[in-house]
Amino acid sequence: MTTFSAALATPDLGGLGERVTAALDEFLDDRAGWLGDIGPDLAPVAATVRDFVLDGGKRLRPAFAYWGWRGVGGPDGEEIVRAVACLELLHAGALVHDDLMDASETRRGAPSVHRRFASLHRRAGWRGSPDAFGAAGAILLGDLCLVWADTMLAGSGLPAEGLMRAIPVYHEMRAELMAGQYLDVLAQATGGAGPAGALRVAQRVARYKSAKYTVERPLHLGAALAGGSEPALAAYTAYGLPLGEAFQLRDDLLGVFGDPAETGKPAGDDLREGKRTALVALTLERTDRAGAVTMRRLLGDPDLDAGGVAELREVIVASGAAGAVEELIAERTSRALAALAAAPITRQAHDTLAALAVAATARRV
Amino acid sequence: MTTFSAALATPDLGGLGERVTAALDEFLDDRAGWLGDIGPDLAPVAATVRDFVLDGGKRLRPAFAYWGWRGVGGPDGEEIVRAVACLELLHAGALVHDDLMDASETRRGAPSVHRRFASLHRRAGWRGSPDAFGAAGAILLGDLCLVWADTMLAGSGLPAEGLMRAIPVYHEMRAELMAGQYLDVLAQATGGAGPAGALRVAQRVARYKSAKYTVERPLHLGAALAGGSEPALAAYTAYGLPLGEAFQLRDDLLGVFGDPAETGKPAGDDLREGKRTALVALTLERTDRAGAVTMRRLLGDPDLDAGGVAELREVIVASGAAGAVEELIAERTSRALAALAAAPITRQAHDTLAALAVAATARRV
Repeated sequence: MTTFSAALATPDLGGLGERVTAALDEFLDDRAGWLGDIGPDLAPVAATVRDFVLDGGKRLRPAFAYWGWRGVGGPDGEEIVRAVACLELLHAGALVHDDLMDASETRRGAPSVHRRFASLHRRAGWRGSPDAFGAAGAILLGDLCLVWADTMLAGSGLPAEGLMRAIPVYHEMRAELMAGQYLDVLAQATGGAGPAGALRVAQRVARYKSAKYTVERPLHLGAALAGGSEPALAAYTAYGLPLGEAFQLRDDLLGVFGDPAETGKPAGDDLREGKRTALVALTLERTDRAGAVTMRRLLGDPDLDAGGVAELREVIVASGAAGAVEELIAERTSRALAALAAAPITRQAHDTLAALAVAATARRV
Repeated sequence: MTTFSAALATPDLGGLGERVTAALDEFLDDRAGWLGDIGPDLAPVAATVRDFVLDGGKRLRPAFAYWGWRGVGGPDGEEIVRAVACLELLHAGALVHDDLMDASETRRGAPSVHRRFASLHRRAGWRGSPDAFGAAGAILLGDLCLVWADTMLAGSGLPAEGLMRAIPVYHEMRAELMAGQYLDVLAQATGGAGPAGALRVAQRVARYKSAKYTVERPLHLGAALAGGSEPALAAYTAYGLPLGEAFQLRDDLLGVFGDPAETGKPAGDDLREGKRTALVALTLERTDRAGAVTMRRLLGDPDLDAGGVAELREVIVASGAAGAVEELIAERTSRALAALAAAPITRQAHDTLAALAVAATARRV
């Protein structure tokens, strides 16, 4: 099993991750100067965005967007790297808001942004509630990341014609992300509608939050920038949707079984948050009465300890759901690869997207 | 004293407010259909955006943007009305996030968006905390409004050339808004740095949150869409910044002395939130020792009652700060009108922007 970072270092991807990071570095340097001109007290905002965006992330969405462009004949260049790097800023904004909504303490092994602003308040001994200040900082920093993503795309240096073609795709992707996030929050609140309903609900969330947002739309964005044909866009959908679903299913497994040293998140975090994933839905569908009682008792308990995590893991494995999810991942990944084989795209894009499919679904982070 | 709504109904503005509302109605209808296609459980999101955006708002930013366009020779048309209406969606997103950060219970006389989502959760008897669900709903709905604002601008039907010129202005305006909001939150936390520092801090917040965001940038956006000249843009700045400052100073007075029946906000809401406005800064600079003690004791007390509001109002008036702010409003408004008189713009735009200046600074809402 290769981690994604390992795959990213292969010559196939041509150091794209590093080039994306360099483009973000340059852009954020410029924006930090802009914030500094307004006032030195905005320095923590600039520093927090930098740390968050430069220190982590698999650069997966930029990779799909870049190869979406290359696949339909777009040439390599710094302009397209800058354009696709904007997706990391968009994703940063979404994660900052997501961590606040989930009250997550950490992200990528470091304190989450709302925790960072709360600490700033506490250390300075300011008035009012540190947590309220932390929440406000995270809301505004997330908003700023969303705005800066657009700024980076528009200022990428790509011709106006391509940008105008891509902007509707970009808007659609962002609105789908927000809708998917809301459905996710809603599913946690309602707990789905019985086991069968829960699986359907989890799959719809996965479709919008992952399949479209992480894979299909980035590919479409790159293709639209380059003026790709309708058949190429359709092939990207046929490859992207099952792959994105497999990606989310891997995420579900990592949220329960992932190694905190690798994921940067506490063990069993999704269980503590009570996330209604396909993995959870399949467990509820397949487990026996005792397992169902354990799930009801522990899932979503914010104080769940290591013993509780272990207990839930056992139910999930014993029910057969963990194995079933591995099978689903394999099936969806092969379906994506089959669609890719038939796609009217360049040879190099084909080979890289095949490698990306494997890396994105076999990762440990 | 005319309220803004009264001014908006004058023939000078040609029913622009109603046309903006109609454009928003049509756009949101289309978007509600889009959300409905994803799932019927997204209906509360669509309904809440509609209620929030269609039921209120002075349509001030669209008016400035529209007349920024007309002033440099842009023709009337439904495309420009759709383009400027996007500013109401942007503003809605900012207000929804702002109300959450301030923990405001109401907005425009109705429950704030996070309260609405919390009630939805409570009525349905869902699992988890209604307040956490309310916060998540408000964060995502605000994000969605920010995205939809861009979608509406890009899909306005205006030519790509104008949009490409305007987009950098639009991005700058949004980033300035976020920066101004952060400075505002920070000022409430730090309480400013002594009375003199507090006035400087309040003026900087007002510059970004109001002067640029409410007046100057909307004018620039309209002018950029129409391809306006540099001297016209400079004239809009010379008119917009003092007018925007006057607008914020009026807001400061309304936040303390406004009539809840007209503002739709509880009496003295800014005092309860401890907003560090120029009015508060001037009071601290001018009041006697007893007044300073009262201010320290009551300002920012979340449980401040009618008696406390009255006590603070008395200190503010007795210090001379309320009168000084009225004088500042008059001075800034005349400065804006003088700049307008010299602006190289159309006669009709001149007359309407003069009327808008009076309406925006003499309003009671």
